[in-house]
Amino acid sequence: MKVAIIMGSNSDWPVLEPAEKTLKDFGVEVEVTVASAHRTPEVVQKFAAEARSRGVEVIIAAAGAAAHLGGVVASYTTLPVIGIPINATPLGGMDALLSFVQMPGGIPVATMAINGAKNAALFAIQILATAHPELVAKLVADREKMKKEVAEKAAKLEALRKV
Amino acid sequence: MKVAIIMGSNSDWPVLEPAEKTLKDFGVEVEVTVASAHRTPEVVQKFAAEARSRGVEVIIAAAGAAAHLGGVVASYTTLPVIGIPINATPLGGMDALLSFVQMPGGIPVATMAINGAKNAALFAIQILATAHPELVAKLVADREKMKKEVAEKAAKLEALRKV
Amino acid sequence: MKVAIIMGSNSDWPVLEPAEKTLKDFGVEVEVTVASAHRTPEVVQKFAAEARSRGVEVIIAAAGAAAHLGGVVASYTTLPVIGIPINATPLGGMDALLSFVQMPGGIPVATMAINGAKNAALFAIQILATAHPELVAKLVADREKMKKEVAEKAAKLEALRKV
Amino acid sequence: MKVAIIMGSNSDWPVLEPAEKTLKDFGVEVEVTVASAHRTPEVVQKFAAEARSRGVEVIIAAAGAAAHLGGVVASYTTLPVIGIPINATPLGGMDALLSFVQMPGGIPVATMAINGAKNAALFAIQILATAHPELVAKLVADREKMKKEVAEKAAKLEALRKV
Amino acid sequence: MKVAIIMGSNSDWPVLEPAEKTLKDFGVEVEVTVASAHRTPEVVQKFAAEARSRGVEVIIAAAGAAAHLGGVVASYTTLPVIGIPINATPLGGMDALLSFVQMPGGIPVATMAINGAKNAALFAIQILATAHPELVAKLVADREKMKKEVAEKAAKLEALRKV
Amino acid sequence: MKVAIIMGSNSDWPVLEPAEKTLKDFGVEVEVTVASAHRTPEVVQKFAAEARSRGVEVIIAAAGAAAHLGGVVASYTTLPVIGIPINATPLGGMDALLSFVQMPGGIPVATMAINGAKNAALFAIQILATAHPELVAKLVADREKMKKEVAEKAAKLEALRKV
Amino acid sequence: MKVAIIMGSNSDWPVLEPAEKTLKDFGVEVEVTVASAHRTPEVVQKFAAEARSRGVEVIIAAAGAAAHLGGVVASYTTLPVIGIPINATPLGGMDALLSFVQMPGGIPVATMAINGAKNAALFAIQILATAHPELVAKLVADREKMKKEVAEKAAKLEALRKV
Amino acid sequence: MKVAIIMGSNSDWPVLEPAEKTLKDFGVEVEVTVASAHRTPEVVQKFAAEARSRGVEVIIAAAGAAAHLGGVVASYTTLPVIGIPINATPLGGMDALLSFVQMPGGIPVATMAINGAKNAALFAIQILATAHPELVAKLVADREKMKKEVAEKAAKLEALRKV
Repeated sequence: MKVAIIMGSNSDWPVLEPAEKTLKDFGVEVEVTVASAHRTPEVVQKFAAEARSRGVEVIIAAAGAAAHLGGVVASYTTLPVIGIPINATPLGGMDALLSFVQMPGGIPVATMAINGAKNAALFAIQILATAHPELVAKLVADREKMKKEVAEKAAKLEALRKV
Repeated sequence: MKVAIIMGSNSDWPVLEPAEKTLKDFGVEVEVTVASAHRTPEVVQKFAAEARSRGVEVIIAAAGAAAHLGGVVASYTTLPVIGIPINATPLGGMDALLSFVQMPGGIPVATMAINGAKNAALFAIQILATAHPELVAKLVADREKMKKEVAEKAAKLEALRKV
Repeated sequence: MKVAIIMGSNSDWPVLEPAEKTLKDFGVEVEVTVASAHRTPEVVQKFAAEARSRGVEVIIAAAGAAAHLGGVVASYTTLPVIGIPINATPLGGMDALLSFVQMPGGIPVATMAINGAKNAALFAIQILATAHPELVAKLVADREKMKKEVAEKAAKLEALRKV
Repeated sequence: MKVAIIMGSNSDWPVLEPAEKTLKDFGVEVEVTVASAHRTPEVVQKFAAEARSRGVEVIIAAAGAAAHLGGVVASYTTLPVIGIPINATPLGGMDALLSFVQMPGGIPVATMAINGAKNAALFAIQILATAHPELVAKLVADREKMKKEVAEKAAKLEALRKV
Repeated sequence: MKVAIIMGSNSDWPVLEPAEKTLKDFGVEVEVTVASAHRTPEVVQKFAAEARSRGVEVIIAAAGAAAHLGGVVASYTTLPVIGIPINATPLGGMDALLSFVQMPGGIPVATMAINGAKNAALFAIQILATAHPELVAKLVADREKMKKEVAEKAAKLEALRKV
Repeated sequence: MKVAIIMGSNSDWPVLEPAEKTLKDFGVEVEVTVASAHRTPEVVQKFAAEARSRGVEVIIAAAGAAAHLGGVVASYTTLPVIGIPINATPLGGMDALLSFVQMPGGIPVATMAINGAKNAALFAIQILATAHPELVAKLVADREKMKKEVAEKAAKLEALRKV
Repeated sequence: MKVAIIMGSNSDWPVLEPAEKTLKDFGVEVEVTVASAHRTPEVVQKFAAEARSRGVEVIIAAAGAAAHLGGVVASYTTLPVIGIPINATPLGGMDALLSFVQMPGGIPVATMAINGAKNAALFAIQILATAHPELVAKLVADREKMKKEVAEKAAKLEALRKV
Repeated sequence: MKVAIIMGSNSDWPVLEPAEKTLKDFGVEVEVTVASAHRTPEVVQKFAAEARSRGVEVIIAAAGAAAHLGGVVASYTTLPVIGIPINATPLGGMDALLSFVQMPGGIPVATMAINGAKNAALFAIQILATAHPELVAKLVADREKMKKEVAEKAAKLEALRKV
């Protein structure tokens, strides 16, 4: 099971690190690439066109501003491409969000929240689970863990309010 | 191979019909449900919680306005949920888009363009292809068909301009 | 007289604390819950469905991003639900505002300003006053107190400008 | 049980008529006023200041553009004021929405969706139910009716798709 | 010659101080008031209704959020009212801007830029100059002063770039 | 008493005609000019620079899109300039509104609502009233007329609802 | 002198036709291509990479929605690329505008107004004039023609108002 | 080869310095001017009208807020004008962006990203390359350099992740 993460700039890495961590926690192999849709289009093209043959099953693309990376990757592969719009300009990420999500008919990019790296990883895992049913139990366990964390936070706040 | 489409209101059907058509063209079984996250929450909950056991592999959720349907469905299943924000208010679909895409960490909804029904279907097929490799060739063929259509449109315009 | 405050994350508490304080100042009992519409949907459902029988008369729901908490709570109760959109993403709270306020017909959520915790409490008290007329005099006194505070601030500025 | 509806212009009436109808369906007396926060401020002031003594328990205020009506009404009464932003300019109602919902601390206006007249009525009824418990059963019945309507719409679509 | 400045909150004073300074530099008497359209509506009404008889010739109103102050003042006087939308919420002042500028027909409020206190003062002086022609020469002199300042800044940058 | 109306394109005339009508109803002489800040900058410059000597006391400038007309006019005169942003592009007039209202410090343009021609005329009259006190009574009478119109509309709706 | 126009869909042609007409009026050869950044990326790549060797001196790229065409073309050529965002979705062209204009550092796309085909052509001619000085006189003549047209429109309105 | 940079305020210089640096790196002479479209319109007019005769081949105009500088410069010259919207108000540069990009037909301003100084310089060089073919090789080399930088950043991240 392999997911490729591609980002437009390595300055996006602190935002994206949780995606890699989540994927590894689920036992998914991760391939990380820095490449720019505009400055290194041939690298992106090659990355995308050969991804399936390298064993990649899902691609996560992250970029800010006029974020074309998701669309360019998707145009060279039929693998599912998940997009993470990065908040990288004074417009609060709205430019990247619209550049990702408003893809015209024919070539979809599945868009996550602005800076939504963790959800991108979880969605990649949900896709992988279609072919790798052993992940379903892990996803269910993750949901249970989240429920516990919310309960713990509720308890912590309760304690705080009683002081 | 089965995809479930759930929509908040049957008035959204004209927008969603291309999704069903595309899925059927790829030989995917389609289940269509009308249910409201707010007016029939129990129906939605049951729909989502039992989807995997009904054989559904991907869910497409479409809604307008404060579009909670995608998030509510996703909270009751670990299947991949694809969201289609519907343009249903004077805000041009921006309300539905943000209600779908800005999901907080833990429960992803993969969001498509406003009214982007066809891409939702194509993305569902890309997900299915992870487990059903026979779909890959069909996706590649679809891409080739699109290339031809663009070329034909280019030729048509060329002819028009020469007149 | 009891008001329940439910929030999506305990990190919202600093924003919400003035709501609890205001309610207590008016002699209203306050119940505080941390629960996520997406991560703990069953907790939210139970919270909402049983609220009336627990003696709750008004619910205040606060959440950020794609803020579905208000709508999900409202779908399981006929108690009045007041929503507080939290500024929790790079979009300045516009995502949470639209997710709360643009509720489709049938299930209302009464929305306050972004981070508007104090007004949520005051509106809850205005609702309670419908059944508990003793609150009316307190609301009138609160308005008088506000008038005095404005007058004092005006005097303070006058003094400052004379220096 | 009495609810007052006040609107900035009688051209808003087609949008607001469902509010009156809904209130009457629940057996609530309705008082309708046309008055402008800017052109007839004294009328609005008198309307608001005397509403409680006229037996009004909830006020619904509807206006478009720089919609100050809700805030002005709320400043002269401690009754709960529900706001309906009207889509009346080229900005799609965003101007009215922000003018209603972003009320500063101290004087709340509970804001509904743009043109959300039906929900304003339902929320008024939910408020009234605090003091008039007989309305709770009617609200529950209304929810059941909505559930049936959704089921019927689902059936209708199912029929349509089978053709 | 007298201009009245009214603001919703004395926390706005640092933004507004340049307005007072500019007016005084032009020899205009300034009256400063803190009053809230919502918390002290009677004070605002009295302030506006009696302004002309107090010798005020122009009113400057500044407020943030759902900024109704300009509209409320304008509804009680036929003096020219200039509005300054204050950036006071996570929406960057867009809420205050739309609340000021989108006044419906009949009662105008002349709106300046977000936080545009200096221009409000200059525009008030331009209005006063209609009746007090001695101000025209001062306005022309101010324009000349601005031209010199721009030239000096250009020279400063030139020097900086040569280093 | 003379007011000059300048517009970027004669296609804006239907929006602006109410401004001329209102001014004439108040006995104000009106000068109407079509000139483009970008296509005929010299015409605009001459128009603005000589306006005061032509007897103009207030200028109303209307334009759509990147609406620079107000700023360009204001840069060549110290007369008060009122701006009307015209809704002339797919952005609903937001482009014109920001181009008018966000004037940097030094050169104000008093901005009205999108397409707000009538208010521009009324504000011009309020300015003129500073120097021409006979207009005050007319403004007061106009307010009274508006109050009557609102009352008539209220009566009409009342009649309609009784049917 | 040759300019290439590339568009994402031939449905954009009615918007773009004025660009071709303007270029031809200035004696510029025009090459028109329909190609999609996403559906036919290889066509776009070849189009861009070989444009300079085909004698193209400026490229005009037009697209709607998540409009990546300008960026993708620019990434394969050092020719100047002018972008025209097309209004093709419920967002009024804001999605296309941000997708064009917010290009990250390194690869510029010179963006025109939404649907701004004529200006794209004029800007291409201004670029060509750098190398083809004979165009300068034509540009100056075009400006003169525009001035006359504005004057004629002004006269027409004057006549209309006198009736 | 000469490019002129004009900015509305010398406080914009830190944003613009990379433009000058880039131009000089390509061997282009740079002329820098501080002048305000509104405060020093005659300076701007003279600057623009005489630019071509001073040997300027491209103009870069940068301004924030209601940024009219680009349009005003463009109205007095047929040289290509490139606009840089500056983020200078609480609206994140959206006001400057729309003021630059939404130019009406006839007078184009080629708009770059908010604060996009480097791309403005690169685009100026691409224009110059039309007449100065020696720049083409430099542009190609610059692209190669960017490709290397991306590769180095990718390597750096790879190293970081292995630690």
